[in-house]
Amino acid sequence: MSDRKPLILITNDDGYQAKGIAELINAMKGLGELVVFAPDSHRSGMSSAITTAHPLRARIYHKEENLTAYMCNGTPVDCVKLALNEFLERKPDLLVSGVNHGSNAGISVLYSGTVAAALEGCVSNIPSIAFSLCDFTPDADFTYTARIAEKLARKVLSDGLPKGICLNVNVPVGEVKGIRMTTQTQGKWVNEYQRSQDGIGRDVFWMTGNFENWEEDNVNNDEWALANGYAAVVPVKIDMTAHDLIPELKEWEL
Amino acid sequence: MSDRKPLILITNDDGYQAKGIAELINAMKGLGELVVFAPDSHRSGMSSAITTAHPLRARIYHKEENLTAYMCNGTPVDCVKLALNEFLERKPDLLVSGVNHGSNAGISVLYSGTVAAALEGCVSNIPSIAFSLCDFTPDADFTYTARIAEKLARKVLSDGLPKGICLNVNVPVGEVKGIRMTTQTQGKWVNEYQRSQDGIGRDVFWMTGNFENWEEDNVNNDEWALANGYAAVVPVKIDMTAHDLIPELKEWEL
Repeated sequence: MSDRKPLILITNDDGYQAKGIAELINAMKGLGELVVFAPDSHRSGMSSAITTAHPLRARIYHKEENLTAYMCNGTPVDCVKLALNEFLERKPDLLVSGVNHGSNAGISVLYSGTVAAALEGCVSNIPSIAFSLCDFTPDADFTYTARIAEKLARKVLSDGLPKGICLNVNVPVGEVKGIRMTTQTQGKWVNEYQRSQDGIGRDVFWMTGNFENWEEDNVNNDEWALANGYAAVVPVKIDMTAHDLIPELKEWEL
Repeated sequence: MSDRKPLILITNDDGYQAKGIAELINAMKGLGELVVFAPDSHRSGMSSAITTAHPLRARIYHKEENLTAYMCNGTPVDCVKLALNEFLERKPDLLVSGVNHGSNAGISVLYSGTVAAALEGCVSNIPSIAFSLCDFTPDADFTYTARIAEKLARKVLSDGLPKGICLNVNVPVGEVKGIRMTTQTQGKWVNEYQRSQDGIGRDVFWMTGNFENWEEDNVNNDEWALANGYAAVVPVKIDMTAHDLIPELKEWEL
C-alpha cells in the first residue's frame, strides 16, 4: 500500500457549495487523494441524525486528478456512512469535516453536524478531525484555519489517533496565536427562541440564543482558548458512558 | 414547593401517537403532574438535531387533570428546548423520554432521538431518563418496560442524578430477569445500505444494517445484559471530552 497516496474523505454540514469546504479541500490537496462526499444543501445542527424514512442518492459534481467530489441528499453522518459503505474502494486514512461556518465549541459538540461527521469516522476507526471557524458569514476568511487544518491533518495522518477518539478543532477569527489542547467547555444555550407570528397570527418560534458559560475561570477549556486568540482542539470520545458512576448505580435498591 | 406535585416532562422520538409514549404516560401518572411535549410525527434517528431554518409550532392535543399534552413540529431535542424555554411554568423535576419502539443500546446512543432528548434534559440540569424496548413493532408489549420505568423514575425523583449524566435504559422483549447497570457496548453498524432503484432506474440507498459487537465477551455492557434477559441501564455523559488523552496531545509538536 506504500505506493498509494493516503485517501482523505472530506465532508461538512454547510453543504457542498460552502466556502468552508472549498478551503478545506484546498488545504488537503498536497496530502493525498481526496474524495468529497458532502450534503447537497445546508444541514447545520443535524447532530448524528440518520435518514431511515426516505432513500439516499448521491452523484459526482466534480472530478479532477486526485479529487472526486459527490453531493448527497443526506445528513453529514449519512454522507460518511454512504461513502464508506457504497462508494469508496478503500478505507480512508483520514476524515476531515468542515470547515464549518461558525463555532462548534462547548456544548455545540452535541448538536453539530460537522462534529458528528468526525464522530462517525471515528466509529469506523478512521482518524477524524472536525474544523470550525468562529465566523458564520458565508465569505468568512479561512486563511489561518486552512493552515491549522493542514498542520493537524499531516500530524494525524502520520501518527493516527487512539480508537474511539476524534478531534474537534475550533479556530477564532483573525490572527491565531497558537493551538491549545483543551476540554469541552461546560455550559448551555439560553434564551433559545424568538417568538413571532405567521401570516395569520399564529405563534411560531425561531431558534436563537446565547451560550452561558459555566466555567468562566477555567483556562483549560475551548471557550477560554478561543476568547484568548488560540485555536482549541478537544479530543472527543464516542463512548459516552459515565464509567465513574456505575459502582454507585450498582448500589441502588430497585 | 413541597405542596406541589413533581413536574414530569415526557417526550419521545416516535411521535405523540406511538404506543410507547402512551404507556410511558400511564406509568408516570401516579408520580406527579405530567406535561407531554412530543413530535407531531415519527422523528427516529434524529440524534440531537435542532431546527434552525424554519420556525417551530406547538399546540395542545389533550388535557386532563395533571396532564397537558402538546405536539410540536420539531425534533425530540427541539421539543425539550421549546417546552423548557417557552411553555413550562416551572422547571421539571424529571424528564422521561420514550418508550422507544426498538433498541437504543450500544452505539445507537449517538443516533437516537430518544436518548438525545434525555441528554438535552441533562444539559438543563434536569434528572433525565431515556427508555427503549427492543421491539420496533407498533403494537409491542410494554408491560415490563412500564414497571421498570416507574421504578427508575421514582428512584431518580427521590435521589436525583449527578450533574451532566442521564440514564439510557433498554429493556429486552419478554419477561425481564432484573436490572443491570452497564457500559455502552462498543461496536458499530455494518452493511448499512440496501441499494435499490427509483422508478426511472436511478440508484437509491435505503438504510438497513446489523450491529457488529466488538465486545462479545464483556459481561458488563448493555448488549450482554439484553441478550441475557436483563434491562440495561447505562449512565451517559454530556461531556464527551477524552480527558485522558489531553496530556499526550499537549506533547504534540505542531
